[in-house]
Amino acid sequence: MAASDTHIVASFDRDLEALQAHLLRMGGLVEAALIEAARALEAQDLPAAEKVIDGDKAVDALEDFIQTEAATLIARRAPTASDLRLVLAVMRAAHSLERVGDYAKNVAKRTRVLGRSAPVEGHAGTIRRMSLLVARMLEDAQLALVRKDATLAAAVRGRDVEIDQMYNALFRSLFTYMMESAGNIGPSMHLHFIAKNIERAGDHATTIAEQAYYLATGTMPADPRPKGEAATEPAPQT
Amino acid sequence: MAASDTHIVASFDRDLEALQAHLLRMGGLVEAALIEAARALEAQDLPAAEKVIDGDKAVDALEDFIQTEAATLIARRAPTASDLRLVLAVMRAAHSLERVGDYAKNVAKRTRVLGRSAPVEGHAGTIRRMSLLVARMLEDAQLALVRKDATLAAAVRGRDVEIDQMYNALFRSLFTYMMESAGNIGPSMHLHFIAKNIERAGDHATTIAEQAYYLATGTMPADPRPKGEAATEPAPQT
Repeated sequence: MAASDTHIVASFDRDLEALQAHLLRMGGLVEAALIEAARALEAQDLPAAEKVIDGDKAVDALEDFIQTEAATLIARRAPTASDLRLVLAVMRAAHSLERVGDYAKNVAKRTRVLGRSAPVEGHAGTIRRMSLLVARMLEDAQLALVRKDATLAAAVRGRDVEIDQMYNALFRSLFTYMMESAGNIGPSMHLHFIAKNIERAGDHATTIAEQAYYLATGTMPADPRPKGEAATEPAPQT
Repeated sequence: MAASDTHIVASFDRDLEALQAHLLRMGGLVEAALIEAARALEAQDLPAAEKVIDGDKAVDALEDFIQTEAATLIARRAPTASDLRLVLAVMRAAHSLERVGDYAKNVAKRTRVLGRSAPVEGHAGTIRRMSLLVARMLEDAQLALVRKDATLAAAVRGRDVEIDQMYNALFRSLFTYMMESAGNIGPSMHLHFIAKNIERAGDHATTIAEQAYYLATGTMPADPRPKGEAATEPAPQT
């Protein structure tokens, strides 16, 4: 390999590493926003909720930056098939993280609407625990991606079942709560949407993990994903 | 310009046109799925709902194809800034359309769950009308994108307000319906999620229209988008 070729390759690797570092930074912001939004909900901390809403702008800006950097990298370097797959995976992961940032913002917006209404007992705690698990899944999914770690990627994917179980239990609980008194319907619907947002954030962690698995092994996980949105949701007694 | 340069440029334009044709084809599938999902809901046509669920695989495959083609195009041609923006806009639009396809699938899955339970009067009709308007918005947003038509793009964006108004009216109506009888809560929650899915599909049409506007004018629309999810949603009387 000529010296200039080595130089080009090294410089490409540096660009690729920088791109992944930006993704991890974006992931850090998004995980923090999700955890903080759930904490603010439980504590009815409205100023903290406003901060989460406001902070989403930085996440959006970082996504734009990553998408532009990734496209520029592809245009300038014309990467090989496997490097191209990595750059595309980073672009998709950045998009997933942007969506999760929106979910955190939505949780904070509903916290604002729920305001100082009587808390629906116990549910905010469950939501906080869900959000912690999802934030950890997001972190591990990103690590699996940058390390091309198939084992970690598969583990993250498996953990989504737990989130779905928590969501389903919460759905049942909110449902009976709504049946008990018409006054519970309003806050329960907001809590249900909040739980759904966090469950969807878990789906995005799974999507990132699947990309990581594909990068590491060249194949998608063989077993079908263990969940389907409305299909697993407990059918209310209509 | 040398003959070979002209040849390269013409061939790039052909690739770009083919990419946009694939996007329009994907859009056609997604619009049809959305309309058919809402029709199946109103008619309680479960086989049609199953077809919508099954059809989403073709949409996902088409998105993968478009993303790969777009990336290959960038890698091979190293397009200029304005062509790169177009390819990136197509990639983002394809992602938006894939999400809308998921929403159509979710509507069909909930139709399956709602099954033969007593229909909640009038609401399925409103949902069908919403889905028709959103499908038209999606179509026009894609046309605005491929034609770089700022006027059409701005018009699509304006129409999202109508969708939000329909959604808010439906939300209020379902809410009172739930208050009336505990037996209405289950089906109403499913209908609410369905309406929310279609409202989100409208948001994606708006996102595509904003990309189109940006491509045509080089700037984002000046006025902030006329809506925000939880913020405009009528606060239930808690």
